[in-house]
Amino acid sequence: MNQLDKQSVISAAERIKPYLHRTPVLSSSAINRMFNCNIRFKCENFQKAGAFKSRGATNALLQLSQDDLTKGVATHSSGNHAAALSLAAKRLGTRAFIVMPENSNKLKIKAVEEYGGVITFCKPTLTARESTLAAVIRKTGAVEIHPYNDYRIIAGQATACMELIAELPDLEVVMAPVGGGGLLSGTALAAGFFGQKVRVIGAEPAGADDAYRSFYGGIFVPSENPQTIADGLLTSLGSLTYPIIQQHVHQIVTVSEEAIREAMKLIWERMKIIVEPSSAVPLAAILEKKVQVEGAEIGIILSGGNVDLSALPF
Amino acid sequence: MNQLDKQSVISAAERIKPYLHRTPVLSSSAINRMFNCNIRFKCENFQKAGAFKSRGATNALLQLSQDDLTKGVATHSSGNHAAALSLAAKRLGTRAFIVMPENSNKLKIKAVEEYGGVITFCKPTLTARESTLAAVIRKTGAVEIHPYNDYRIIAGQATACMELIAELPDLEVVMAPVGGGGLLSGTALAAGFFGQKVRVIGAEPAGADDAYRSFYGGIFVPSENPQTIADGLLTSLGSLTYPIIQQHVHQIVTVSEEAIREAMKLIWERMKIIVEPSSAVPLAAILEKKVQVEGAEIGIILSGGNVDLSALPF
Repeated sequence: MNQLDKQSVISAAERIKPYLHRTPVLSSSAINRMFNCNIRFKCENFQKAGAFKSRGATNALLQLSQDDLTKGVATHSSGNHAAALSLAAKRLGTRAFIVMPENSNKLKIKAVEEYGGVITFCKPTLTARESTLAAVIRKTGAVEIHPYNDYRIIAGQATACMELIAELPDLEVVMAPVGGGGLLSGTALAAGFFGQKVRVIGAEPAGADDAYRSFYGGIFVPSENPQTIADGLLTSLGSLTYPIIQQHVHQIVTVSEEAIREAMKLIWERMKIIVEPSSAVPLAAILEKKVQVEGAEIGIILSGGNVDLSALPF
Repeated sequence: MNQLDKQSVISAAERIKPYLHRTPVLSSSAINRMFNCNIRFKCENFQKAGAFKSRGATNALLQLSQDDLTKGVATHSSGNHAAALSLAAKRLGTRAFIVMPENSNKLKIKAVEEYGGVITFCKPTLTARESTLAAVIRKTGAVEIHPYNDYRIIAGQATACMELIAELPDLEVVMAPVGGGGLLSGTALAAGFFGQKVRVIGAEPAGADDAYRSFYGGIFVPSENPQTIADGLLTSLGSLTYPIIQQHVHQIVTVSEEAIREAMKLIWERMKIIVEPSSAVPLAAILEKKVQVEGAEIGIILSGGNVDLSALPF
């Protein structure tokens, strides 16, 4: 398959529809006044398992053969993909085997357990994660579902932007955070397929700027020792997400940790909704004037709302 | 006027519509599974100024004569009514004079200032509040708008339940927190006018149980030294709200502070929305099994979302 076509995204939307929420689009007149533009927030923090990750995970699982589905699915993830995959597996009557670093956030561990995921802990290194996952797959026969480097996942994540554009046909700019690039690549494809010349902007923490460097450098640069409170954005782009982003995204900008915290607080205080730090990264870019948005119709994908309430960054 | 008729509520809804949000109704499958019932939350935390209080304040101001409106409006309030009245006054091109106790929450003071309210501070006693307000009114000629003991306010607050029932005609139970009783009396009237035998339940902190005692004792008992984190529910019922509640509410229950905290955290974690402690009081009653709700279709009015993020109760 040469990347993904429009029909793959439409099919993904139809496939996942009975299982997931069509999330609301909210706005805040106070935030709009502050930045002199019209921002609509696509609230994936209200999605099943609290993040857009349920879209890709559900789309991938629904395309497995009955035989594969019976064996179960597996992944290594310390975050929202682990919870989303566990919930999707439970919903489809199978099991998810999750390899998690032993230093994972307790809240994320609890969510995976609650959704029935079978956890194997490992040392917090990529090598340990990969070798442990390989061992789990050898033992269980489960099918690996990568968090982002998989066209079924990307097509699923694309449905958030597809819904946003269906609701707001006059959208001029769409912004999404970028970690592994599943959401951003899907968003960029959906903007091209369903929008009218929508400008696609990725926003990334300066402390985890592999996508920014890969995008402007023209060659893939992996993340090295990334440091950011946006814990969903620590991963590097993948071999499938990087070329889509390279081809279909118009701009990638980086933001400071301070701006992420400030934007997150702004969303909590003004919109009365709970978003995790990763979700606040696009608004942080507007806050730091990294993008020209004056007077524009802007859509922002709020990626998730899973945050430890006992350890807020403000 | 003998209390309020159905047309007063319909007129209030039409009057305030251009100025306010029709707030969304949200639900959580996790919360529903937990309590084995179907709860729909009417999200007044997303209302203008972050609380249902904007409904009553806007309805009252829109019924003032041009002459009265020019003089401005006045109230004493340490909370959401102060902010709502200030915002409504600003929107209608007049001024709000707000008497606030000098120990008021800084966030609430900031909100009133931001909406252009003119604050006069006073000692934190009811006598000081009333005498300071009288002095402000003498000086400015402003028209007093009481936070709840006013039929225009009650009719405005009733529109939240009216909207909820319009969206959910099969509602069997509606629950609201009770402080001064503006929201609860309006909710009870709307349930009678627009619902099909809807059971109306008020929920109150045990540490501020004047409504509970007045309701079951049959005579009005004022609040004395109330103690609760639900800072919107410290006031006593009024001479207009008490009889409506007495006549149209089916049950009032009290809840512990611990249950309020737990219910608030449940809403934050599961629904990813920010509500203030007062909003969590009805769910706290379900949590403590103070009400029989198994299998029922329940509506809960989430009264507001103004909370100091630097001082969370959990």
